Amino acid sequence: MRDFNEKNITDAVIDRFKNTPDPRLKTIMTSLVRHLHDFVRDVDLTIDEWNFAINYLTRTGHMCDDKRQEFILLSDTLGISMLVDAINHRMPEGATQTTVLGPFYVDNPPEFPLGFDVSRGLKGEKLYVEGTVSSATGGPLPGAVIDVWQSDTDGYYDVQRSDLDQPTLRGRIRADDRGRFYFWSILPSPYPIPYDGPVGQMIQATARHPWRPAHLHFMISAKGHEKLVTHVFVQGDKYLDSDAVFGVKNSLIGNYTHEQPGVAPDGTKMGGPWRKLKYDFGLKPLG
Amino acid sequence: MRDFNEKNITDAVIDRFKNTPDPRLKTIMTSLVRHLHDFVRDVDLTIDEWNFAINYLTRTGHMCDDKRQEFILLSDTLGISMLVDAINHRMPEGATQTTVLGPFYVDNPPEFPLGFDVSRGLKGEKLYVEGTVSSATGGPLPGAVIDVWQSDTDGYYDVQRSDLDQPTLRGRIRADDRGRFYFWSILPSPYPIPYDGPVGQMIQATARHPWRPAHLHFMISAKGHEKLVTHVFVQGDKYLDSDAVFGVKNSLIGNYTHEQPGVAPDGTKMGGPWRKLKYDFGLKPLG
Repeated sequence: MRDFNEKNITDAVIDRFKNTPDPRLKTIMTSLVRHLHDFVRDVDLTIDEWNFAINYLTRTGHMCDDKRQEFILLSDTLGISMLVDAINHRMPEGATQTTVLGPFYVDNPPEFPLGFDVSRGLKGEKLYVEGTVSSATGGPLPGAVIDVWQSDTDGYYDVQRSDLDQPTLRGRIRADDRGRFYFWSILPSPYPIPYDGPVGQMIQATARHPWRPAHLHFMISAKGHEKLVTHVFVQGDKYLDSDAVFGVKNSLIGNYTHEQPGVAPDGTKMGGPWRKLKYDFGLKPLG
Repeated sequence: MRDFNEKNITDAVIDRFKNTPDPRLKTIMTSLVRHLHDFVRDVDLTIDEWNFAINYLTRTGHMCDDKRQEFILLSDTLGISMLVDAINHRMPEGATQTTVLGPFYVDNPPEFPLGFDVSRGLKGEKLYVEGTVSSATGGPLPGAVIDVWQSDTDGYYDVQRSDLDQPTLRGRIRADDRGRFYFWSILPSPYPIPYDGPVGQMIQATARHPWRPAHLHFMISAKGHEKLVTHVFVQGDKYLDSDAVFGVKNSLIGNYTHEQPGVAPDGTKMGGPWRKLKYDFGLKPLG
């Protein structure tokens, strides 16, 4: 077939996928071509705009390395990540809601014992975190694997800092035999998503702000349950209603209480004020 | 706003673009988000598929450098390039039709004189190319700038070969004072688009073939006229009806005639058989 025009080219392209062995891939490619072509026709995309898009995607790819994932940022800021999250996590009663993974998770974080201070001495407001991991349909999940990661007081993750020689404000702990966990850290801060790249260019050109409300990240795994990827946001944060990546859910806002000098739940003597977060997680059973 | 679900998140994301200063950008972002979200909902995209897409786009970006443009290949193979071409080039009578730029154009090619052999001695079937450049509404366009580039006999462009120390089978000539041009080359061959990257992975997974019918590329500029980007395909090529990038138009198929030993139009004595292409280009006046 030859001489395609703006009306018949879409069906011609879709026809090329007719022999795709995997029916799911065929469905996805067919829908992708249909919707991308509709977009191009809808806005009457110009050659210059197409060139800009090619260049934009190329720059976005070149921005990605083992510490920066600009395509995840793009997906996050276009609300695609949270849409995929919503479609895939129709959660039952008792299960903690999910939110975006974000671009700062690092595989295989260092393990640390219950009660450890993941801030490793960084300055900030001392924070004690405790909670439980349970099945949405039943009792505690002993030995659940809990990955935690967060920003520092200035809003940066360790992978964004060149002055740290070990993973900091991130790590993996295991719930005890009653599904309980606790550790020390510092209060996370709101922060702008990295805006020195193509995503920042989009945020600026569209007069949006790049800020995310302060939060701790959790990724929790336990046998027989869906892996939970979520945040616990800091109550009262000014960006809760305008999160740059659309990630806030009311059920994920935690009460980071103000505590007076004294003795913390794990016996640590606190000479000054500190904060405490208690949050219990529920995991969705598989199948 | 908080607690977005798969139904209300699209309007929430679009609302974030409400203060975009440039109305065109606002239109584009609104439509892009609408269509991308529709795609995700349409196929119920899974987390694993989203992860694959992020990784696929990242690999596509990493494949791009000054000699390889994988995002253009992706656009070409999804028919987006030809759709953009069709939308932007509703050509008047007398104007040559357009087709894809492709990923192998190099800015500022070396200039050469009329009659030059751009093959620079590469093996292949000798080809004499001649033609004129005119305005679609009137007479010849003296001094029109003609960029030409093409594959070699094995189907490779110079930028894909490591054994060449200068631009080969590409260059820039200027039409004479009557809008005429002529040069020597070798017959181009059909070739597969580069399939050692993410685009090749897509082509293979969907049981498509990566071949393009043989062609010469032309980019022609003249004062007061739209820049013309097009090909002249080789009549009879077996891939004319299944071009991997949907670029073939009947009006762009050239008759590369078989010529007997003798004297070529520029006076060159030919001891063996050779080929000749005569193709006249028409440029669309601006405005």
